[in-house]
Amino acid sequence: MASTDAILEPGDALFGRFRIPAASVFFRSEKKSVAFVNLRPIVPGHVLVIPERIVPKLRDLPEDEYIDLWLTTRKVQEALTAHYGCTAFNVAIQDGREAGQSVPHVHVHILPRVEGDLERNDEIYDSLQEWAPRQELKKTVQSLEVPEDGDRRDRTAQEMADEAALYRNSF
Amino acid sequence: MASTDAILEPGDALFGRFRIPAASVFFRSEKKSVAFVNLRPIVPGHVLVIPERIVPKLRDLPEDEYIDLWLTTRKVQEALTAHYGCTAFNVAIQDGREAGQSVPHVHVHILPRVEGDLERNDEIYDSLQEWAPRQELKKTVQSLEVPEDGDRRDRTAQEMADEAALYRNSF
Repeated sequence: MASTDAILEPGDALFGRFRIPAASVFFRSEKKSVAFVNLRPIVPGHVLVIPERIVPKLRDLPEDEYIDLWLTTRKVQEALTAHYGCTAFNVAIQDGREAGQSVPHVHVHILPRVEGDLERNDEIYDSLQEWAPRQELKKTVQSLEVPEDGDRRDRTAQEMADEAALYRNSF
Repeated sequence: MASTDAILEPGDALFGRFRIPAASVFFRSEKKSVAFVNLRPIVPGHVLVIPERIVPKLRDLPEDEYIDLWLTTRKVQEALTAHYGCTAFNVAIQDGREAGQSVPHVHVHILPRVEGDLERNDEIYDSLQEWAPRQELKKTVQSLEVPEDGDRRDRTAQEMADEAALYRNSF
């Protein structure tokens, strides 16, 4: 992700003020929901689905785009299941800032789960709360409260493109 | 909630093997999604939306029922917003046991949020992970890992009926 001072190339998407390079995008629906891999996945296959329209909340979406967002989510779950053989998902939306939303653009978190993937099952939520698309967006108040995660690092563009390519083939 | 050894009365719903009394149900869509208040809310206005059909996962729903589940979720958010003046929501599904699902029946958690409602914003997720419809379903493994919540108690039928009645008027 780069700031939108960068020029948008064909196939790129905007996630709030951030540019998502085309290589990270792995699905677009006809009605312009966009699925992409992310820089700081909480578990393998943690991806996001957004409406192309930049709106902060679910209620800001017209009904057809709202439905399309969820149909896209379902398609993405199918693709991830085929790829990872995962047996479950956490599907979560922080619908507004007071719910922990870090970017004011509707985004569905899709988190594939398998037995024993986390030491404590509830780590998924600690991580989701901490999650922000870029290191510098991490919420300082919350970082006082949650465990250190110094061993998490931003991923490379290549890692992200590779992951997106994998998923793209599943549709 | 009572076990389904109890006889179902008109207006009741089934949430997995649990009977949801009609008094706790505050909305039914034409396509039979059901919204009800719950016994152990994490925050005020924490409600659930389920398909009437008892299926464990999102992918088990036919497309029309899947869409209806999300349209119902949206309607419920509108109603809760009108009632609580909440500014945000956590909307979350544990789609399978490995994701922390406590009852094998699709259920959307809708959690109204307002500024400063929790001491730490990420408490919402600890609580969501712990959540089960009844005290005895609480997951013993997780209860070793999470803070004590001895001061939470099951609510009375009347409290729940009152809350459902409030919401019912919003549709």
